[in-house]
Amino acid sequence: MVNKVDHIGIAVKDLDKTIKFYEEILGIKCVDTEIVEEQKVKTAFLPIGDTEIELLESTDKSGAISKFIEKRGQGIQHIAYRVDDIEKALEELKKRGIRLIDEKPRDGAGGAKIAFLHPKSTFGVLIEFCER
Amino acid sequence: MVNKVDHIGIAVKDLDKTIKFYEEILGIKCVDTEIVEEQKVKTAFLPIGDTEIELLESTDKSGAISKFIEKRGQGIQHIAYRVDDIEKALEELKKRGIRLIDEKPRDGAGGAKIAFLHPKSTFGVLIEFCER
Repeated sequence: MVNKVDHIGIAVKDLDKTIKFYEEILGIKCVDTEIVEEQKVKTAFLPIGDTEIELLESTDKSGAISKFIEKRGQGIQHIAYRVDDIEKALEELKKRGIRLIDEKPRDGAGGAKIAFLHPKSTFGVLIEFCER
Repeated sequence: MVNKVDHIGIAVKDLDKTIKFYEEILGIKCVDTEIVEEQKVKTAFLPIGDTEIELLESTDKSGAISKFIEKRGQGIQHIAYRVDDIEKALEELKKRGIRLIDEKPRDGAGGAKIAFLHPKSTFGVLIEFCER
């Protein structure tokens, strides 16, 4: 069903300070940043191996990242898996009784088509499917 | 400093049920399981791309995974980055003022040498360094 870990999404309060930590301490370089209006986030992309760290700072208090930080503090928010055909994958999940947050794909960062699965169906992990 | 994401550690209540989800729904196969006495966990290894999902079930109520689940529920617990020389990496981190949970490497699953960085120094993420 899934090909690889497309990215790991990390909720942060201060994108610039966090990028500095990843670049200067861990040596993982930020290649781009993007504001995704629909998700009310500013995202930074830091490729490593065949995957990517995505740092997410909320642009609005009503956004999912802001709420996540309020409830749990900064930290790992989701894992995204790359799929070839997201619509087909979502159909298959629905058939298997997996609860979805997004029944249909929506626009994610970097021009991807994305959808989230519900953590109640995935043993507590917020899982994203991602087609590029 | 780091080469790749060695694995993503996920705290779960029931290893067997969770493995079933990863294998049958996501199509990520479990290749091995191991009890790591020192960390009071039973671990399952599920390689994907150049990284791995590590599912962690506590073998004892006093273990870190048990405490994590009690406080936050099941979910992503840590990210491990592969390093060439863990002792050298820890020295470098200390010099840079990064707070460490483990000043010296200890034994991890799969014969790895591992050490955890303190989330207070890493913008909320529990980061593991891992030499294999």
